Amino acid sequence: MTKKNAFYAQSGGVTAVINASACGVLETARRHSDKIGTVFAGRNGIVGALNEELIDTSYETDESIAALKYTPGGAFGSCRYKLKNINESKNEYHRIIDVFKAHDIGYFFYNGGNDSQDTAQKISAVSRELNYPLTCIGIPKTVDNDLVITDNCPGFGSAAKYIATSIREGALDVATMAATSTKVFIMEVMGRNAGWLAAAGGLASEQDGDAPHIILFPEIPYDEITLFEKISVCIKKYGHCAMIVAEGILTKGKEHLKESSSTDAFGHHRLGGTGHVIAETIKRNLDIKCHYAVCNYLQRSARHLASQVDLDQAYAVGQAAVEYALRGETDIMLTIERLQNKPYRWQVGSTPLSSVANLTKGLDRHFISNDGYHISDACREYLLPLIQGEAYPPYKNGLPEYRPNLHLHMAEKKLSDNN
Amino acid sequence: MTKKNAFYAQSGGVTAVINASACGVLETARRHSDKIGTVFAGRNGIVGALNEELIDTSYETDESIAALKYTPGGAFGSCRYKLKNINESKNEYHRIIDVFKAHDIGYFFYNGGNDSQDTAQKISAVSRELNYPLTCIGIPKTVDNDLVITDNCPGFGSAAKYIATSIREGALDVATMAATSTKVFIMEVMGRNAGWLAAAGGLASEQDGDAPHIILFPEIPYDEITLFEKISVCIKKYGHCAMIVAEGILTKGKEHLKESSSTDAFGHHRLGGTGHVIAETIKRNLDIKCHYAVCNYLQRSARHLASQVDLDQAYAVGQAAVEYALRGETDIMLTIERLQNKPYRWQVGSTPLSSVANLTKGLDRHFISNDGYHISDACREYLLPLIQGEAYPPYKNGLPEYRPNLHLHMAEKKLSDNN
Repeated sequence: MTKKNAFYAQSGGVTAVINASACGVLETARRHSDKIGTVFAGRNGIVGALNEELIDTSYETDESIAALKYTPGGAFGSCRYKLKNINESKNEYHRIIDVFKAHDIGYFFYNGGNDSQDTAQKISAVSRELNYPLTCIGIPKTVDNDLVITDNCPGFGSAAKYIATSIREGALDVATMAATSTKVFIMEVMGRNAGWLAAAGGLASEQDGDAPHIILFPEIPYDEITLFEKISVCIKKYGHCAMIVAEGILTKGKEHLKESSSTDAFGHHRLGGTGHVIAETIKRNLDIKCHYAVCNYLQRSARHLASQVDLDQAYAVGQAAVEYALRGETDIMLTIERLQNKPYRWQVGSTPLSSVANLTKGLDRHFISNDGYHISDACREYLLPLIQGEAYPPYKNGLPEYRPNLHLHMAEKKLSDNN
Repeated sequence: MTKKNAFYAQSGGVTAVINASACGVLETARRHSDKIGTVFAGRNGIVGALNEELIDTSYETDESIAALKYTPGGAFGSCRYKLKNINESKNEYHRIIDVFKAHDIGYFFYNGGNDSQDTAQKISAVSRELNYPLTCIGIPKTVDNDLVITDNCPGFGSAAKYIATSIREGALDVATMAATSTKVFIMEVMGRNAGWLAAAGGLASEQDGDAPHIILFPEIPYDEITLFEKISVCIKKYGHCAMIVAEGILTKGKEHLKESSSTDAFGHHRLGGTGHVIAETIKRNLDIKCHYAVCNYLQRSARHLASQVDLDQAYAVGQAAVEYALRGETDIMLTIERLQNKPYRWQVGSTPLSSVANLTKGLDRHFISNDGYHISDACREYLLPLIQGEAYPPYKNGLPEYRPNLHLHMAEKKLSDNN
């Protein structure tokens, strides 16, 4: 086997532990320096390949790479940039292969969600077409937990832990205030189409009366009359009501219950304001004082509250990406396989890129309670292992220390600029 | 000294550590059971006194009381209920004294902000007028940090730690995405009039380029042109821009930059939507993709990220309240006195209730940088000690365990109902 260089890139929205996957790739590649040469990281994801902006990670110390485990965000930059289909964007695919050729890259590790697995698959197809040998491995990552085949997605467990912790805390606040002031607390979480993150909040509810009392999923059409009724009953029973609201709530007419109608680069509606809209509706209709929080980026960057299981899995898929590549595997995405629930045991597996690309896994209906406003016991059983363990980062001056002190040395360009 | 019972109540918005003050009161009272009888806690603050809803804390185990140190929210319920002046609300003040008499209460510990210190002072005055001996002690508490005299307010340090941590994390997220997507991240924090919490976010910025890049304080009139210019310069320099926005931002015409115009029980405008308003303005005017988070209750209930210094101080003022009372002091509020900065040393002191009641301490102008968009070095020096140390709560099933398992046994009523 000739020694080849590798290219690693982060794609799409980041997570609290995507850098742990990077750490897994880089540390494992270093352990196999007889077989893998330089690992280049794409500056801002695949855009780094297009622009030949390659970060030469051989300049990074072992300490810096180890510190990636404790650093949220994407250390090398990510992107929302979707390559079109091969016929439409032939130039881009060829350019990427040219850049890989110029830097003797034989391994492509792409760390992202379903769009990214699609991109990895297409790049692999083009490389074959051009007779350029390229090992293409997808590393799963998404707080949305919506990749198919894999039991869960690295990044989700930490966001889930953050959301369940936050609704528990916020609910204790509103419970305290409810007698004379605010009675409803709404926490808006991410989830355009799938209610996984909203469901995660349900873990905070372990006993009768525990928050969240109501969860609004994108999978269940928004029904104001039923919601108002549920809120009223809840307040009557417990004095207050704490709710999780997914950003992607749909009306019965399938319209997004939101204020903003702009779209992101993938053509998805960029939602926001759902919590605000519902809070205003409740105030107006029920004459109840209502507070709302919007978690937004905080839920996917809260490394200070990362799940140890999630961190371990994020690292493991990065490590396995290199190991599987060296075994000669290609065109696969690593997966997490659940072996058993109690005690939780898991292992890394793999699946063809073609089986995951562009597909999404919504929250199963049987993971939602019969009435549509909470999670089922099956969902709780599925989710609970994913938030276990506290993987605290180091602290300095009272704050988490997120300074891997990377050099981010740009490799010299060998091609003329992309145009 | 005859043995008398005590009444403790929590007031106003809660904090991550107000229960630590309760713990300080209860544990210290138990150590002095020769001098203090039963400690009753007001159910929902002072409303509990008005309604003769007294929680008999002698039913609580030592373990339950110790667990209050780790439990956010207000364990006995709080209230937003302001007693009017004595002439207007004579009946209410007399009712409170009647309830205290009926339960042989000789000590009144009131845990709250400036409104609460005012209430404590008035109750003291009425007790004197009625010749009912009552020791009245204020225990400071507010995430707003706006009490005068005391160097800082218990509850603030933990909220400060949460805010600085969160903006650091959220900023790493937007930095990652900025090349092809979102370039501005806005985090809205509490602060109707005082920019203390907004300022706390400034602690995350230690080196050139660190977030937050811009802080909008209630003390500095909102100037869109300057703000746009600052954002543009920041994005040019760092590729992205992370901002802290206080909810109480005022326009030059002194109008609140907000959507909601409803008011709370104290007549304060209940703000919200400032972050959203600014995000929309930036998108519209600069054509830049913008994300925003609204911390709301999360910032004042995030016990999982509490500051050890804050926790210690919250406990200490609770403990001192009982000790000062037993020394014969009355009509005082406990304070935190800063002895030195490096290393930070502090002690508990006291001040007359009259010196703090109804007064607020805004962020000094010299704590804001010259340009008005960040904190000064003096501010950093002041704030830094307050967020030191991680006072992690216990975890169970992957989540913070906030179950003090209180009995909350209601003392038998001795009076006819309040009408």
